[in-house]
Amino acid sequence: MAKSSDIRTVKDPVFADLGLYEQVSGLYDGQWVAGEGRSRIAVHSPINGEWLADVAVAGDEDYDRMIERAWASFDEWSLVPAPKRGEIVRAIGDRLRAYVESLGLLVTLEVGKTPVEGKGEVQEMIDIADFAVGLSRQLYGMTIASERQDHRLYEQWHPYGVVGVITAFNFPCAVWSWNAFIAAVLGNVVVWKPSPNAALTAIATTNIVNDVLDEQGLPPLFFLAVDGAGEIGQLMSSDSRLPLLSFTGSVRTGREVAAKVGERLGRSILELGGNNAAIVTPDADMEIALRGVAFGALATAAQRCTTTRRLILHESLSGSFLPRLVEAYGSVRVGSPLKPDVLVGPLINKTAVDSYSSAIGRAEAAGGQVRDCYNQYRERCA
Amino acid sequence: MAKSSDIRTVKDPVFADLGLYEQVSGLYDGQWVAGEGRSRIAVHSPINGEWLADVAVAGDEDYDRMIERAWASFDEWSLVPAPKRGEIVRAIGDRLRAYVESLGLLVTLEVGKTPVEGKGEVQEMIDIADFAVGLSRQLYGMTIASERQDHRLYEQWHPYGVVGVITAFNFPCAVWSWNAFIAAVLGNVVVWKPSPNAALTAIATTNIVNDVLDEQGLPPLFFLAVDGAGEIGQLMSSDSRLPLLSFTGSVRTGREVAAKVGERLGRSILELGGNNAAIVTPDADMEIALRGVAFGALATAAQRCTTTRRLILHESLSGSFLPRLVEAYGSVRVGSPLKPDVLVGPLINKTAVDSYSSAIGRAEAAGGQVRDCYNQYRERCA
Amino acid sequence: MAKSSDIRTVKDPVFADLGLYEQVSGLYDGQWVAGEGRSRIAVHSPINGEWLADVAVAGDEDYDRMIERAWASFDEWSLVPAPKRGEIVRAIGDRLRAYVESLGLLVTLEVGKTPVEGKGEVQEMIDIADFAVGLSRQLYGMTIASERQDHRLYEQWHPYGVVGVITAFNFPCAVWSWNAFIAAVLGNVVVWKPSPNAALTAIATTNIVNDVLDEQGLPPLFFLAVDGAGEIGQLMSSDSRLPLLSFTGSVRTGREVAAKVGERLGRSILELGGNNAAIVTPDADMEIALRGVAFGALATAAQRCTTTRRLILHESLSGSFLPRLVEAYGSVRVGSPLKPDVLVGPLINKTAVDSYSSAIGRAEAAGGQVRDCYNQYRERCA
Amino acid sequence: MAKSSDIRTVKDPVFADLGLYEQVSGLYDGQWVAGEGRSRIAVHSPINGEWLADVAVAGDEDYDRMIERAWASFDEWSLVPAPKRGEIVRAIGDRLRAYVESLGLLVTLEVGKTPVEGKGEVQEMIDIADFAVGLSRQLYGMTIASERQDHRLYEQWHPYGVVGVITAFNFPCAVWSWNAFIAAVLGNVVVWKPSPNAALTAIATTNIVNDVLDEQGLPPLFFLAVDGAGEIGQLMSSDSRLPLLSFTGSVRTGREVAAKVGERLGRSILELGGNNAAIVTPDADMEIALRGVAFGALATAAQRCTTTRRLILHESLSGSFLPRLVEAYGSVRVGSPLKPDVLVGPLINKTAVDSYSSAIGRAEAAGGQVRDCYNQYRERCA
Repeated sequence: MAKSSDIRTVKDPVFADLGLYEQVSGLYDGQWVAGEGRSRIAVHSPINGEWLADVAVAGDEDYDRMIERAWASFDEWSLVPAPKRGEIVRAIGDRLRAYVESLGLLVTLEVGKTPVEGKGEVQEMIDIADFAVGLSRQLYGMTIASERQDHRLYEQWHPYGVVGVITAFNFPCAVWSWNAFIAAVLGNVVVWKPSPNAALTAIATTNIVNDVLDEQGLPPLFFLAVDGAGEIGQLMSSDSRLPLLSFTGSVRTGREVAAKVGERLGRSILELGGNNAAIVTPDADMEIALRGVAFGALATAAQRCTTTRRLILHESLSGSFLPRLVEAYGSVRVGSPLKPDVLVGPLINKTAVDSYSSAIGRAEAAGGQVRDCYNQYRERCA
Repeated sequence: MAKSSDIRTVKDPVFADLGLYEQVSGLYDGQWVAGEGRSRIAVHSPINGEWLADVAVAGDEDYDRMIERAWASFDEWSLVPAPKRGEIVRAIGDRLRAYVESLGLLVTLEVGKTPVEGKGEVQEMIDIADFAVGLSRQLYGMTIASERQDHRLYEQWHPYGVVGVITAFNFPCAVWSWNAFIAAVLGNVVVWKPSPNAALTAIATTNIVNDVLDEQGLPPLFFLAVDGAGEIGQLMSSDSRLPLLSFTGSVRTGREVAAKVGERLGRSILELGGNNAAIVTPDADMEIALRGVAFGALATAAQRCTTTRRLILHESLSGSFLPRLVEAYGSVRVGSPLKPDVLVGPLINKTAVDSYSSAIGRAEAAGGQVRDCYNQYRERCA
Repeated sequence: MAKSSDIRTVKDPVFADLGLYEQVSGLYDGQWVAGEGRSRIAVHSPINGEWLADVAVAGDEDYDRMIERAWASFDEWSLVPAPKRGEIVRAIGDRLRAYVESLGLLVTLEVGKTPVEGKGEVQEMIDIADFAVGLSRQLYGMTIASERQDHRLYEQWHPYGVVGVITAFNFPCAVWSWNAFIAAVLGNVVVWKPSPNAALTAIATTNIVNDVLDEQGLPPLFFLAVDGAGEIGQLMSSDSRLPLLSFTGSVRTGREVAAKVGERLGRSILELGGNNAAIVTPDADMEIALRGVAFGALATAAQRCTTTRRLILHESLSGSFLPRLVEAYGSVRVGSPLKPDVLVGPLINKTAVDSYSSAIGRAEAAGGQVRDCYNQYRERCA
Repeated sequence: MAKSSDIRTVKDPVFADLGLYEQVSGLYDGQWVAGEGRSRIAVHSPINGEWLADVAVAGDEDYDRMIERAWASFDEWSLVPAPKRGEIVRAIGDRLRAYVESLGLLVTLEVGKTPVEGKGEVQEMIDIADFAVGLSRQLYGMTIASERQDHRLYEQWHPYGVVGVITAFNFPCAVWSWNAFIAAVLGNVVVWKPSPNAALTAIATTNIVNDVLDEQGLPPLFFLAVDGAGEIGQLMSSDSRLPLLSFTGSVRTGREVAAKVGERLGRSILELGGNNAAIVTPDADMEIALRGVAFGALATAAQRCTTTRRLILHESLSGSFLPRLVEAYGSVRVGSPLKPDVLVGPLINKTAVDSYSSAIGRAEAAGGQVRDCYNQYRERCA
């Protein structure tokens, strides 16, 4: 268990670098809206349950005003030539380079990913910014030979307008950037509803990226509304002013989003759960396979859509592969991600721990055999 | 008003050529299922309301058995190489060439389109078959340079499986073929739920295309289930065994389909209503513009998603363009599509006529001015 | 050896159907130019050496006038919308369907291919016409997002103008059509210099295709200049009025063409000789491999760029594969292609026979072992 | 006229930073080959004719050994996965970023471009490196549906092997990089023959890029052979070991290259002279047009293939546009590019000056009127 002083040692410089406070607004509707009169949610670190900050969440009227302002930005932004939009996203990527360390550590504090994974989140934002810069010069349509003389046909791609992005706690800023930076070079404006479990990361990110726009005299493009229990997400699903909605989260909620967006004839991008299997054949490279299977199952404390859930092993390998896999699991350090060499950090909250324990219980009840290594996890996580 | 004898003169040879009977099955689940014990719907011609045939519709268990058989066909069909699938669709297109006349006239009898439009329906099936043949050799994926040595990445496109197609009365077979022939060259099997107002056309079409497959010893690919009041359509929307559903019809029903298919994380293709406007600028070619606006508004008795609904005219043109448009409307022949030179036939049924009258009434109540030519339509359609 | 009466029985109806005469012009410069005052070459059938016709060849001034007229056609043709050009090529393909039999037999008479191969030549022209029709609606360029506001970039493909096509005797019309029909849908005009050994096929083909254009009131697009000893081909290589030159023939001549066209900064398409090897591995399907190797080596009397020249056999197969290959060779019927079941017809002329004999001689001198089956060929070809 | 001390002040730190000497080798065949026993050419600055260095050029046997070693590098390099090749080119681009200043000034010293243009040269190398990195993950081929069951077709792109690049003095390193970096990510090895007038820039560039490879334990990929009078260039044109040759230079030499490469059935990329016209219409933005025409004509002292050679002006503009153009020319600073604000530097050598004077003379003799501004150029360049 991490000590309170460990958290504090990390948190103070991180908050200072990122301009965060312990009472902070979770609503950016073109500017940061002061939290007076709005509900607050408390953010705790999953590492030791310690309180990190209170976030003032967005209400229904806040949401409406934000969407209106987003469309006002769109009127301006959609007229900027795509390659110039690309240059601005490049500048945003460059700005993020200055925050790899602090924003990465905030991810560790807030959602429990290891610092390597936390910095990886920020690096993904930078990489996708570079990728979006390239796209901004490749927005090709087609010219088509017409059957009428002196007549021309050609395609031209137009932006949707304001698009919504709902993200989960396990990739607290990378997934947003995949959607947001590509949407932006295409001329769209983005409204973000993050997981309440990752509100601080969303606030810090929103702060950084809009600063760049503001310095260049451009309208705000990256709006943010933290909510407490999914109310904003529900508004977004049903809101015809969001022609496109990208949702990352559970299959159950994904079904609801798809139905609601479909009913209003909108478009949805869904990134939901998985049931991934690793298949290991006799001619595989055993070292790579072992590392792939174990890392696939353990990374991000298995809280990923791409987590290895099933291992399909050729029968000739069971004698050699399984003992080594058990050994690999046994050698992995579990605990506070602030400690060196820890590979597996905490689950995000008590609900997740209960769900994990209950799944193990069901597996045992069904005759499943739980290896020692699992018991270790249980103990260490207690 | 067309005389009964006119209808009969057309109907008898058409039914004979297409193998239709006055008591006919609306269920093809790999073979034509006899109608005993099933409900029937009566099909009347919109031309003069005359009865054409009774169709035995599909029930819930019929539907389930059909879907199972469609998946059995898929197991076989999906292994046929795509260019060979293309050859079979080419043969289907060639077979349809023999039925342009009779199937075209059946369209006229059943949904009231003019014979030119009716044959155009069949010609579209033939054209899309040719197009699908071309596609069957162009199912390109990409090969991608891997970052690992001695390693290759490449894409391969796989079929969905069994896909559903729900069509409307106004394009009683063309729209089905757009979906069905392309689905087929890609390795899919197709389940069709046509409009009850166009059941005979669907039955005759299904008959022709499966004959070709049967003669070549191939499994049935084109399944059919006529229903009475949309029950089969509702089953299809909610059926996870149909990973893709194509729906053509009203915006209202389209929203429901999108929601239901979305909820089960399926994919939908929606072809719904429109609110098309023609924009005429001062430098337009007036002859082409006049013909385009009038034909766009009148064809298929205005029962099309692409019907011109609004005319946006540069003010400098109102004096010259509108009188000519009124004149053009006045010169169009309205009446039984079996008579020569008739351009505008009947609406599909009484509900459509009521809806039309009520819209005119609302327009007048709102201060709209109804030109004489409209009154003509009302009279002639009475 | 075929009897003279055999040839005559085939030739007379073929010439009648194709509008050929025994004194015929080899120059089409927008119309057929009478042969007075021009040199003639005699065309003999390689089947038995019998004289078929005399062709009046083109001289230098003829060539110049032809190129000028071709450019005059270009001024008109290049303005026809591409999909309409496609429709015209479709009509040409349809017209050729009426001549599959007679033009195919002319190929047999003139260059000795079997009737199946001869008709295959014409079928290839039909197929490429269909393919070119498809292309005529796919002449896509790109639209590109500009970095300047209110500014657009897009690509538009323009034709070259008049393009030259030089073909060899072994594919006397198919290769021309690959170039000519695609060039035509792209808006180009084509000048053809065929092999003198296949002059009649070129004349008959040119006749058929320009008839279609003439009937539709279009300018001539397919010009023809037969020469005796390659003079026209040399003019074409050096002629800057032909921005693109397609040449099919020997590597030696191909080098000269590439150099001359390069020197004038033109573009060349070269289809030259090959040195094809078949590789047979132990896991190959032996039946398919055997047929592939033998047919690859024997078809068109081995006078093709794709003829199998080398067989690379896994050592484990030599005992089983080679005897069967020798047997396959032995069972092939060699002789007059007018006789039933003959698979291997004559070489094109005496030079080719000498070259063949000399190659066998060199192989034997080098210690090579000539199987009986080869001796059969020699005897039968004597 | 620049003073000798000005040159020296720039040259010394530039040579030091780039590792250049006043006696330097112009042959890199995997390593820098000492100059003993080889001919030398003297490099002078066009700014004031001052001697900069002596370069030991490559001889015929040097060339042969270099090509052999390049092919040896290819055996290794072509097996590196393309995205890894991209990473190496990225590292090369990053390394070049450290030499923008010094390599840019070397360009100014050696060929007389302004420092802004000189640095632009290096920046283009960096930009194309970034572009090539992107390409290294986009080397797509197609997968194609086969007509045979259980059979797959797909494309895979292979490198040519060793490719040659011949460049001109006016873009002394940028043009090389366009060819070299893209060739390298595709798996090729590059042999460079620069203009003798830009030998030092080529040597310094080659030095920088191969250092990166060497540090990473990779084989040399960027070979260099400076020659005195085009002998190496001639060897390259005729050398079948170079399947692709890129040539930038005069139309006259380009024709020879095309012919020689064509004769050996190789491929050539030619970037030759131009005859560019600017067309100014009445609705153009006059400020942009004026700047475009003047800069297009003056940049790089008009020694570019893209230099404006003709101005096609709508007659309504002649009264307003021409006087302003004359004024623009008059205000441009001409002289040593080492002086501030100079836009037009020297021509590359005496031959170029003579050719310029002679062209002016011919224009006057033909009745052309030479504006004062031209006289200024003549005087200042004297």
